[in-house]
Amino acid sequence: MRTEHLAPVCDKALVHAFGFLGKRWNGVVLGTLMEGTASFSELRRAVEGISDSVLSERLSELGSAGLVHRSVDEGPPLAVAYALTDSGAALLPALKELTTWARENLGPGALNAI
Amino acid sequence: MRTEHLAPVCDKALVHAFGFLGKRWNGVVLGTLMEGTASFSELRRAVEGISDSVLSERLSELGSAGLVHRSVDEGPPLAVAYALTDSGAALLPALKELTTWARENLGPGALNAI
Repeated sequence: MRTEHLAPVCDKALVHAFGFLGKRWNGVVLGTLMEGTASFSELRRAVEGISDSVLSERLSELGSAGLVHRSVDEGPPLAVAYALTDSGAALLPALKELTTWARENLGPGALNAI
Repeated sequence: MRTEHLAPVCDKALVHAFGFLGKRWNGVVLGTLMEGTASFSELRRAVEGISDSVLSERLSELGSAGLVHRSVDEGPPLAVAYALTDSGAALLPALKELTTWARENLGPGALNAI
């Protein structure tokens, strides 16, 4: 009888996580909101290279996914703020692990491949 | 004196992590290799929807980044196997956290947005 190793399988939840968070800027916007509530213009300045229209689209997707909450203070002046929901905030441990890993293990070889 | 909250900043290491792992299939291939060494055809079967040419390109990028090691057993039969390096294996805690989070917090709303 031959001993075969089990064929690897790929966890569907992980595929979904990377599909969603890896979509350009989703994970990064969430990571930025980990530091607290932010306005649209604060987010735009924090996420280097993002355009107004893409940030707007991403915030709307993150809202539909139940990860980001948009609150409006009618003012005056009118103020719109974005914050993480509980589901969004629950990502914090994973983002911390990812950041630490990237700092320690992602060298120039990896960054050239992006 | 007005009290202003600090402008959020986005951690560059996290931007790099998502840029690299979010690139289609990089994170998923690493996640699959967490279960152990695999051949090219095992990886292709495990990562649903990936083509031979894309898998080959990704394995080469993961190799250049120092995260995956390719070993050749001259045989016969010739056998090529892929395994995580220590840097690749160091991603395990982050992938576990991500998978748990996705399972608990990433609903259909998020998946429609991919």
